[in-house]
Amino acid sequence: MPPFSRVTVIGLGLIGSSIARGIRARMPDVCVTGYDASAEVRDTARAIDLCDTVADSAGASVAEADLVVLCVPVGAMGAAAAEIAGDLPAGAIVSDVGSCKQAVATALREALSEAVIVPAHPVAGTEQSGPESGFASLFHGRWCILTPPEGTDPAAIDRVADFWRRLGAEIEQMAPDHHDRVLAITSHLPHLIAYTIVGTASDLEEVTQSEVVKYSAGGFRDFTRIAASDPTMWRDVFLTNREAVLEMLQRFSEDLTALQRAIRWGKGDELFDLFTRTRAIRRGIVEQGQDDAKPDFGRTHE
Amino acid sequence: MPPFSRVTVIGLGLIGSSIARGIRARMPDVCVTGYDASAEVRDTARAIDLCDTVADSAGASVAEADLVVLCVPVGAMGAAAAEIAGDLPAGAIVSDVGSCKQAVATALREALSEAVIVPAHPVAGTEQSGPESGFASLFHGRWCILTPPEGTDPAAIDRVADFWRRLGAEIEQMAPDHHDRVLAITSHLPHLIAYTIVGTASDLEEVTQSEVVKYSAGGFRDFTRIAASDPTMWRDVFLTNREAVLEMLQRFSEDLTALQRAIRWGKGDELFDLFTRTRAIRRGIVEQGQDDAKPDFGRTHE
Ligand SMILES: NC(=O)c1ccc[n+]([C@@H]2O[C@H](COP(=O)([O-])OP(=O)(O)OC[C@H]3O[C@@H](n4cnc5c(N)ncnc54)[C@H](OP(=O)(O)O)[C@@H]3O)[C@@H](O)[C@H]2O)c1
Ligand SMILES: NC(=O)c1ccc[n+]([C@@H]2O[C@H](COP(=O)([O-])OP(=O)(O)OC[C@H]3O[C@@H](n4cnc5c(N)ncnc54)[C@H](OP(=O)(O)O)[C@@H]3O)[C@@H](O)[C@H]2O)c1
Repeated sequence: MPPFSRVTVIGLGLIGSSIARGIRARMPDVCVTGYDASAEVRDTARAIDLCDTVADSAGASVAEADLVVLCVPVGAMGAAAAEIAGDLPAGAIVSDVGSCKQAVATALREALSEAVIVPAHPVAGTEQSGPESGFASLFHGRWCILTPPEGTDPAAIDRVADFWRRLGAEIEQMAPDHHDRVLAITSHLPHLIAYTIVGTASDLEEVTQSEVVKYSAGGFRDFTRIAASDPTMWRDVFLTNREAVLEMLQRFSEDLTALQRAIRWGKGDELFDLFTRTRAIRRGIVEQGQDDAKPDFGRTHE
Repeated sequence: MPPFSRVTVIGLGLIGSSIARGIRARMPDVCVTGYDASAEVRDTARAIDLCDTVADSAGASVAEADLVVLCVPVGAMGAAAAEIAGDLPAGAIVSDVGSCKQAVATALREALSEAVIVPAHPVAGTEQSGPESGFASLFHGRWCILTPPEGTDPAAIDRVADFWRRLGAEIEQMAPDHHDRVLAITSHLPHLIAYTIVGTASDLEEVTQSEVVKYSAGGFRDFTRIAASDPTMWRDVFLTNREAVLEMLQRFSEDLTALQRAIRWGKGDELFDLFTRTRAIRRGIVEQGQDDAKPDFGRTHE
């Protein structure tokens, strides 16, 4: 039996709509209610039949829920939680999917002093956003990290873990501050760097934008995909996970300076050693099913 | 009629083997001879029937050619050219596919003082290397940049352009120093940054390698693909295109510092503006057919 029977998803973007679709596909008996602050998103959700019901207020959406999953940008988590505080049934579990866990946990606790809260972060996504970009298999084979505060009811943790397993995810548990440092290096810093280099390329005077586009197949285009991710989501992530991001950025800058010196002084061996070392991590990722071995990300070439 | 009837490919790695396969597919009457410094690569090339003939010396491979394409790492171009100097037929055209054009042009001219040289760079590739990684359609819809020195016979340029068009590429012509700056931003810097961040991630003490691998789907895995590219090729590129790479790196570092400040001081608007601006370039790349619009690089999700 599914661990919940009435799930409410608040924020019907990429992640929220993927959860809704995943429930439909994998837990067909569970009733899904959706809510989004945007009337346009609610209309779209109705038009594409994303949920059993799309409510017109946050309060109404949670009134009968036994699980509420907040899927709004990290900076909006506190406000979204405050909106449901008055209508949340006793005994309902609240979870979220935010990309940063420490600050979100604090915001949720402030808004919902009484609720059982089990924060989660499914490490899965694409560069798209909005209710039409979700799909049921987004979480298959990906990790979902739970970061329950100390003292959280173990039964509640188990139910949320069970929920994510049924959506296809594997479960890991860690402290929120450790989560934020791990994700700073595996997700936040890569996005920051991608945004930066795409910005640098668009600001050059001597190389035109049209040249950048034409010759992007040399590697640059892969960065533009990442840098096409949602601006609101990522602004919130960097403002929220500031300390960890700045620390990882500091390390990265030091390493980049070392590489710059190696190039300036013609130290081919240093370059070669690093370029060889980095292949091992790639192998690990492919072996553990976190990416495809097909070359060029499996782009089709006809 | 194809512009050449006897083509020799020297260096049977990703690019060389893709050219050989492309000729077989698109210019079946053209005779292809191959040569590689590595006996193992020559054996593989024979086993997979890559060329009509695989010669056992560079000199023998070019003796009857009307086009010789050098497909060795940038740092080996001069040596590869010197090896064929004594056997190159009068009237044969020499070309190369090196990722940097200024230094390679100088090296080729020194080794082959008499030959007609039309340097080229097909902006296409994957992260794999070796004779078995090539495929005939690698150059389809990609740009091939010709950088003939001033005074090059226009008829020779036309023939090389025709050759690449038949392999599916579109042709652009530019000065070698401009090429090197354009590619520094669209290809060399992205690779350098990807290598750096993968290195940074593997050196952290508080985040284990296994965590980096597990949670790589948050963005990091895309960098590991780029950082899995051939170490020899990329060492040579950075040593050879040093000035342009260092200059672009300087710009990138300044921009990264600005972003770092914005994060430190909580300037959400600055972040949001940059993250919005970078989407335009992505749209250009997709519209002009230089990448797929499918989310997540078209990775399949089942
Ligand atoms: N995308 C990823 O790769 C990924 C991966 C893992 C986790 N996450 C996390 O998942 C969350 C959602 O991301 P997403 O990619 O799904 O974003 P998204 O596609 O932009 O969807 C977010 C939705 O939430 C709505 N919203 C904003 N504030 C709200 C509020 N107070 N109440 C109700 N709805 C509200 C937004 O409406 P408006 O557009 O009108 O503001 C939007 O429709 C974020 O916390 C993100 O950090 C994302
Ligand atoms: N890969 C890309 O994405 C890409 C794109 C555009 C242009 N390029 C350029 O294309 C060229 C080849 O790159 P690739 O990716 O095809 O590399 P690759 O797969 O590593 O192949 C290079 C081959 O050349 C052989 N070789 C080295 N020195 C030689 C010499 N003096 N004579 C004959 N053979 C020699 C190598 O043998 P050993 O392995 O025994 O040394 C190897 O088999 C480089 O100049 C690169 O900059 C690459």
